[in-house]
Amino acid sequence: MTDADAADLAQRVREGDLRLYELEDHADADTAAAARRHLLAEETGTDLGAVGDYAFDAADAESNVENMIGAAQVPMGVVGPLPVDGGAASGEHHLPLATTEGALLASVNRGVSTIRNAGGATARVLKSGMTRAPVFKVEDVAAAGEVSAWVREHVDDLAEAAESTTSHGELQDVTPYVVGDNVFLRFDYDTKDAMGMNMATIATEAACEVVEAETPADLVALSGNLCSDKKPAAINAVEGRGRTVAADVLVPHEQVEERLDTTTEAIVEANTRKNLVGSAKAGALGFNAHAANVVAAAFLALGQDIAQVVEGSNAITTVDAREDGLYASVTIASLEVGTVGGGTKLPTQAEALDVLGYAGGGDPAGSNADALAEVIAAAALAGELSLLAALSSRHLSSAHAELGR
Amino acid sequence: MTDADAADLAQRVREGDLRLYELEDHADADTAAAARRHLLAEETGTDLGAVGDYAFDAADAESNVENMIGAAQVPMGVVGPLPVDGGAASGEHHLPLATTEGALLASVNRGVSTIRNAGGATARVLKSGMTRAPVFKVEDVAAAGEVSAWVREHVDDLAEAAESTTSHGELQDVTPYVVGDNVFLRFDYDTKDAMGMNMATIATEAACEVVEAETPADLVALSGNLCSDKKPAAINAVEGRGRTVAADVLVPHEQVEERLDTTTEAIVEANTRKNLVGSAKAGALGFNAHAANVVAAAFLALGQDIAQVVEGSNAITTVDAREDGLYASVTIASLEVGTVGGGTKLPTQAEALDVLGYAGGGDPAGSNADALAEVIAAAALAGELSLLAALSSRHLSSAHAELGR
Amino acid sequence: MTDADAADLAQRVREGDLRLYELEDHADADTAAAARRHLLAEETGTDLGAVGDYAFDAADAESNVENMIGAAQVPMGVVGPLPVDGGAASGEHHLPLATTEGALLASVNRGVSTIRNAGGATARVLKSGMTRAPVFKVEDVAAAGEVSAWVREHVDDLAEAAESTTSHGELQDVTPYVVGDNVFLRFDYDTKDAMGMNMATIATEAACEVVEAETPADLVALSGNLCSDKKPAAINAVEGRGRTVAADVLVPHEQVEERLDTTTEAIVEANTRKNLVGSAKAGALGFNAHAANVVAAAFLALGQDIAQVVEGSNAITTVDAREDGLYASVTIASLEVGTVGGGTKLPTQAEALDVLGYAGGGDPAGSNADALAEVIAAAALAGELSLLAALSSRHLSSAHAELGR
Amino acid sequence: MTDADAADLAQRVREGDLRLYELEDHADADTAAAARRHLLAEETGTDLGAVGDYAFDAADAESNVENMIGAAQVPMGVVGPLPVDGGAASGEHHLPLATTEGALLASVNRGVSTIRNAGGATARVLKSGMTRAPVFKVEDVAAAGEVSAWVREHVDDLAEAAESTTSHGELQDVTPYVVGDNVFLRFDYDTKDAMGMNMATIATEAACEVVEAETPADLVALSGNLCSDKKPAAINAVEGRGRTVAADVLVPHEQVEERLDTTTEAIVEANTRKNLVGSAKAGALGFNAHAANVVAAAFLALGQDIAQVVEGSNAITTVDAREDGLYASVTIASLEVGTVGGGTKLPTQAEALDVLGYAGGGDPAGSNADALAEVIAAAALAGELSLLAALSSRHLSSAHAELGR
Repeated sequence: MTDADAADLAQRVREGDLRLYELEDHADADTAAAARRHLLAEETGTDLGAVGDYAFDAADAESNVENMIGAAQVPMGVVGPLPVDGGAASGEHHLPLATTEGALLASVNRGVSTIRNAGGATARVLKSGMTRAPVFKVEDVAAAGEVSAWVREHVDDLAEAAESTTSHGELQDVTPYVVGDNVFLRFDYDTKDAMGMNMATIATEAACEVVEAETPADLVALSGNLCSDKKPAAINAVEGRGRTVAADVLVPHEQVEERLDTTTEAIVEANTRKNLVGSAKAGALGFNAHAANVVAAAFLALGQDIAQVVEGSNAITTVDAREDGLYASVTIASLEVGTVGGGTKLPTQAEALDVLGYAGGGDPAGSNADALAEVIAAAALAGELSLLAALSSRHLSSAHAELGR
Repeated sequence: MTDADAADLAQRVREGDLRLYELEDHADADTAAAARRHLLAEETGTDLGAVGDYAFDAADAESNVENMIGAAQVPMGVVGPLPVDGGAASGEHHLPLATTEGALLASVNRGVSTIRNAGGATARVLKSGMTRAPVFKVEDVAAAGEVSAWVREHVDDLAEAAESTTSHGELQDVTPYVVGDNVFLRFDYDTKDAMGMNMATIATEAACEVVEAETPADLVALSGNLCSDKKPAAINAVEGRGRTVAADVLVPHEQVEERLDTTTEAIVEANTRKNLVGSAKAGALGFNAHAANVVAAAFLALGQDIAQVVEGSNAITTVDAREDGLYASVTIASLEVGTVGGGTKLPTQAEALDVLGYAGGGDPAGSNADALAEVIAAAALAGELSLLAALSSRHLSSAHAELGR
Repeated sequence: MTDADAADLAQRVREGDLRLYELEDHADADTAAAARRHLLAEETGTDLGAVGDYAFDAADAESNVENMIGAAQVPMGVVGPLPVDGGAASGEHHLPLATTEGALLASVNRGVSTIRNAGGATARVLKSGMTRAPVFKVEDVAAAGEVSAWVREHVDDLAEAAESTTSHGELQDVTPYVVGDNVFLRFDYDTKDAMGMNMATIATEAACEVVEAETPADLVALSGNLCSDKKPAAINAVEGRGRTVAADVLVPHEQVEERLDTTTEAIVEANTRKNLVGSAKAGALGFNAHAANVVAAAFLALGQDIAQVVEGSNAITTVDAREDGLYASVTIASLEVGTVGGGTKLPTQAEALDVLGYAGGGDPAGSNADALAEVIAAAALAGELSLLAALSSRHLSSAHAELGR
Repeated sequence: MTDADAADLAQRVREGDLRLYELEDHADADTAAAARRHLLAEETGTDLGAVGDYAFDAADAESNVENMIGAAQVPMGVVGPLPVDGGAASGEHHLPLATTEGALLASVNRGVSTIRNAGGATARVLKSGMTRAPVFKVEDVAAAGEVSAWVREHVDDLAEAAESTTSHGELQDVTPYVVGDNVFLRFDYDTKDAMGMNMATIATEAACEVVEAETPADLVALSGNLCSDKKPAAINAVEGRGRTVAADVLVPHEQVEERLDTTTEAIVEANTRKNLVGSAKAGALGFNAHAANVVAAAFLALGQDIAQVVEGSNAITTVDAREDGLYASVTIASLEVGTVGGGTKLPTQAEALDVLGYAGGGDPAGSNADALAEVIAAAALAGELSLLAALSSRHLSSAHAELGR
C-alpha cells in the first residue's frame, strides 16, 4: 500500500463513489484502513497515528472486525510464575494480563507469590458446556407441555441435526423451559477448545429446523436469552455456561502474616462481611472482591471475547480458617474461554497464549481451554487474596492506630 | 534502549540480582519491558515480536500497568455517523469500536444507519454518581441504628472530609444499609468527567476516618460490595452507578421493512419473548439482546475500564409498536465512563476519544463523560435494533418457508 | 375436659410443677390448650374466647402445632365455577379461598367468570419434583470434583438408600453444585400427592449417609439452601420446585371489552410496562401482578404450608394480542402443594379440599396434587386478568377524561 | 338466622333468581354464608360443618372477604416469654403463632428459651415506609428526564395531594426510575400503625392526578411493580418496604453447648456454608434458614396479609464467633405489618395481638407496628438459632460417629 492509494480511496468515498464498508473490495485491507483514517482525520481533525501503527496484517483481522481503522493498544504485563495443579493445567505459568488499571498486576502478583510460597493452587473444571437457547411460540400451555416432552424424548435426533454442522462440537443435552406459550430449549454443547458460541448457534439452528418440522412449535428467535450470553443472569450463575471452574489454596497462617501483612481472622472477617453479607445485601450474582478485573485483563491479553467478562464475574470467593492455614477458593460459574477461534489467532493474543503454554487445540481436545480456565481461576484467586489482604490490613492499621490513641 | 541493554538486564534477573518488577528502577521502561520479553522468550520459547511492537512510550503507561512486556492489540473499526440529540451529546458521531467478534461492527452499523435515516437518536443521562460503600462493624443492631442515624444527620461533615481529598469530586449523598452488626455506607459522588473510582475511594477513606472518630463503628473494609464494583448486582441495576443513561428512536414502519428487512410486529414479538420473558425466566439483571457487546467494544477503544462491562450490561431494551413507527429504547442503569484519567491518555485511546469528539474534560465539567455515555447508549440501541431485526427476519423467513411448503 | 381441669393444670404451671409444653402429658389436648389460655389470660389480661372456640379436636392437631392455645380463624369464601382443562384437573371447580384482604375474592371471581365465558382455562403441570439439598465439606476443589463425579455415577445407589425410607417417594435425580470446598447435592423426588418436604428430608438423610460412607465428603447441614425452601431464590424460579405449572386462556376481544371493561391493547400495555418492564427494573423473580394473593388464599383454605407462598410467587404472567382474542397465561415455577399430609387433614382444610374435589391421594398417585396445582394456576390467571383489567380500565378512564378536556 | 332461611336463599340461587354474590343483599351475612354452604354441599357432596362453625359474626368480616362460606381454622400455639429490648418493643412477650407445620413452635421456642437465658434480644426498626409505584408512559427519554426532574422538584405538591386523602399517612419521598418511555414513581409513605397498602394506593392515585395534570406523563397502571408488592424483588431487599427491622442476641458459648447442643464454631460453619454460600449459589434474595416460617405463622395468627410473607422472606441471618459468645442476628428488609386495619380486627387475630400487647394504634402513632415488627424479628432470630443448632448438632453427631469408627 501507499499513502497515495489510501488518499485516492478516501477521495472516492467522499465523492460518493464508494461506501465506507466497501473499501476492502477495492484495495488491500491495510490500505482500506488507512483510507478510513484519512477520512476520519479530515472529518474530525484527529491524527490517528497510533491507531494506525498496529502490528499485524489488516487482512488477518478481517474475520474479527469490519470498517477497520487500526487497533486499540492496551498495555500488557505478566504475572507469575503461578503453579497450578489442575485437571488440565499443570506446572508453573506465566500469565499475560492487559489492563489500564494501575496497581492491578502488582496486586495480583502479590497473590500469585503468596500462592507459590504456599505450594501452588489446585484447580478443576467442574462442568463444561456452551449453551444456546432459542425461543419458540406455541398455541397454548398444553402444546408447550407436548413440545417439551417431545424434545426430552428426541435429544438424539436433535443431536444428529446439530452435529451435522460441526466437526468438533457435541450436543450434550437439551433442557426445555416453558413460560405460557413460550418454549425455550437450552442446548448445551461440548465445544472442545473453542469458546463455541458460533458453533453452538449454527448447530442449534439446524436442530431448530427439526423441532419446527416435527412439532407445532414456531421459532421466534434463535436466542431466547436463556442461553444467557453477555447478560448477568442467575441461570448461568446456578447452572454454569462455558466452564464452571474453581481454584483454591491453603496458605499457612504465618505466611498470611508475613506475605499478606494481615491475619487469617482478618481475611475471614473481610470476606464474610464484604463478599458474602455485602453481596447478599446488594442483590448480587457475584460474591467476590474483584474477580472480573483478572478475568477482563486475561480475556483481553489472550484473545477472548471481552463482552463475556459479564458472565465471568459470576464468581464466589470463600475463605476458611483451618487449623493448618487460611483456606481460600474462587469458583467461577460461567467462564467462557477458548484457545482456538475468535481473537486467539491475532498476533499479540497468540503470543500471549503461547507464553501461557495453551495456544491452539489441546490433546485431548478441550484440554487447552480447560487449562486456560483453570489458570484464570487461580489468578482470580490470587487477586482475591491480595485485595482481601489489602482491605483487612488497612483495617488492621486503623485498628492499631485506634489502640495507640 | 538497545537490545543489548535488555539482554543485560534479563541476565541480572536470571542471576537473582534483580526481581522482575524492579527493572524500571534500573532502566527506562521500554528496556525493562524488552528485558521481560527476553526472559519470557527464553523460559517459554515464545517469540514476543508483536507484543513488543507497541505504539507508545512504555513510560507513559507506568500508571496503567506493572511488569509491562508490551501491549495487546485489538482490531479497531468505526461506526457512524450516528446522530445523537442528547443532554450533552449533540450532532453526528463517529464511534470507534475495538473487538475480535466478527460481524459486530457491521451489525451495529446497520442499526446506526437505521437510526440515522429515522432522524437520529435521543439520549439522556438520567442520573449520575460514582459510589463506594465501606462496611463497618458495630456492637449490635441498636448501635447500627444509631450509626445510621448519625450518618444521615452528618452528611455535610462527611462531605467536608471527603471533598478535602479532591479538587473535582463532590459528595452527593450517603445512604446507610444495615445487616445485623454490619453498617454499609454507600457514598455517592459527582466525579465530573472522570469515571471516578479512585477519587471516590480516596475521598471515602477520609470520610471513614470521621465516622470512626465520631461513632462506635469500626471499619472492616473500604469496599463492602454495596458499591457495587465489577460484580453483577441488583443495587446497581435498580439505583444506578456511574451514569444511568437512556437512548431511543422512532423508526417509521416502512423503514423497519426496508432497512431492517422485518416488521415492527416481528421486532415487538422478539423483544417481548426474548428480552423480557426470556430474561425474566433466566433470573437476569439484563433485559437486552447484546448491549454488552457494544459497551465492551466502546470501552476497549475509548480507554474505559473493561472490567466494568459487567455493570454496563445492566440494560433494559424496550420496543413499542406506535402508530407512527417502531419505538425502541435502551436504558443502561450503570454505565461507568470517563473522558479523563484511567486509560484515556494512552495514544490509541486518546485518538479514539478525539474522533468521537469528547476527549478530556468537558465544559461544563462532566459534560464530556455525559456525552460519551449518551453516544454509547445510542450505539447500544443500534446494536439492539440490528440484532432483533436479524433474529426476527430469520424467523420471518422460516415462517415464509413454512407457508411455501 | 372441664374448665376446672384447665384451671388446675394452669395452677401447676404457675407453681413450677409443670412446663408449658408438658401439659399434653397430663391432660387431653383440649384441656391443655384451655390451661394455656388461662395462663395467658392471667398474664396478659386477654380474653381468648374466640381463639378457644375452634371446630376440631385439639388432639387431631398435635402433629401440626405445639403449645396449642386454640386456632386462628380466617374468613373463607368461594370462587367459581372455574372450568379447567388440565393434565389432571378436569371440569368445573369451586375453589375455596381464605383471606382478610377485602375485594380479593370479588376480583378473582370476575376473572373466573371471564375465563368461564371464554370456554375455560387450559392448565398443565410441566415439571414436578420436591428437592432437598444438603451441603457437604471437602478438602479442596479436587475432592469436590471427585465427589461430584462419584454422585453422578451412583444416583442409583443413592436412590436405593433414599427410597428405603419411604413407601411413596421416588428419587428422580441428584445434581451436584460446587463452590470451593462446599459440595451441594440437590436431591429431586417425586413425592406423589404429598407436598413432600418431610419425605424428601428423611430420604435425603439416608442418602447422605451413603455419601459420607463412600466419599470423603463430610455433611455440614442437611439443607444447604439450594433446595431452596421458603426463600426467594432464582434456582427455584429457573429449575422449579414442587410443581411447575401453567394455565392460560384465550378471551375473545369483545369479551375483554364487555366483561373486563377494557381493551386487549390496554391489557397488553399494562402487562408489558408493569409485569415485565417494571419487574425487570425491580430486580424481581416474580413477573406478575398479584399471583401470591391467590396462592396464599388457596394455601390457607386448603391446608398447604403458607410459608411456601414465597416460592409460589415465582410466577410470570404473559399476555398476547392474537387475532382471535387476548391470550393470557400464568406460569408458576415452584408451586409446592399436596393433598395428603401437612394441614390437609384438619377439618376446615379437608372440607375445602373436598369442595374442590381433590382431597386425599389421587389415582394415579400424584394426580390430585397435580390437579390442585392446575386449579390454583388457573385461579391465579383469573386474578391476573382481573387486576390487569382494573388497572388498565382506570388508565382508560383517565385517558378518556383527558380527551374530554 | 335459621337453617330454613339459608335453604330458601340457596333455592333462589338455584332458580337463577339471585346470584351467589348478591346474597348479603337479601339476608344477614351469616345466613348468606350458610346458603352458600348449602349450595356447595349439594353440588360437591361436601359436608361443610367445620367451615361453618366459625367464631365471629360474618357481618364483621364483610370488609375482609366476599362470597363468604365460613372460615379456615388453623391451629394456634404460643411461644415465649421472649424478652425484646427494642426501639418500640419492650419487656417479655408471648407470641401466638398459627401453623400446620409440626415441630415449628417447639423449634422456635427452643430458640426463644436460648435468647431468654442469654438476657434477651435487642431489636430495632431501621427504616419504615410503605411504597406504591405507578408507571407512566411518556413520549421519549427526553420527556422521561423532564418528568423525573419535575417530580424531584415537586415532592411537596405531590405530598399535599397525597395527604389530602388520609388523616394519618405522610408522604416521605418520591423516587423516579426511568426505563425508556416508562417513568416509575416510587411513593414512600409513613403509614403509622397501619400496614398501609390501601392508604398508599389511594394517596398515590391523588398524586398521580397532579403528575398527569402538570406533566406530559400518562398513567398506565397505578402499580408498576417497583412497589414491589407480593413479588420477590431486589428493590425491596435492598431499599426495604414496610419495616426494615433487625434483631440480635449474644449467647455465651457455654449456653450454646448446654441449650443448643452444639458449638459456636459449628453454628458459624453451618450459617456460612448454608445461609451465605448456599443462598449465594442459589441466586437468592433470602439468606436465612427459615425466617419465612416464623413470619408466616405470626402473620396468620396476628391478622397480617399472608401474601406478604413473600417480602418477609427477604431476610439475612448473620452469626459471629465473638470472644464472649455467639453473636447472631436476623435482618428482615421488608416486613409489612400493621396493628390496625386489615385482618387485625377479626376476633382471633385481635385476641392474639392483645396477648402480644400491641393491638390497635400505638402511642406515639406507629409504635405498635414497630414493636410488632421487632418481636417478629426476634422470633425469627429464635427460629434461626434453633434450626442452625439442629442442623449443626446433627452434623456434630455424624462427625462424632465418624471419629468412633
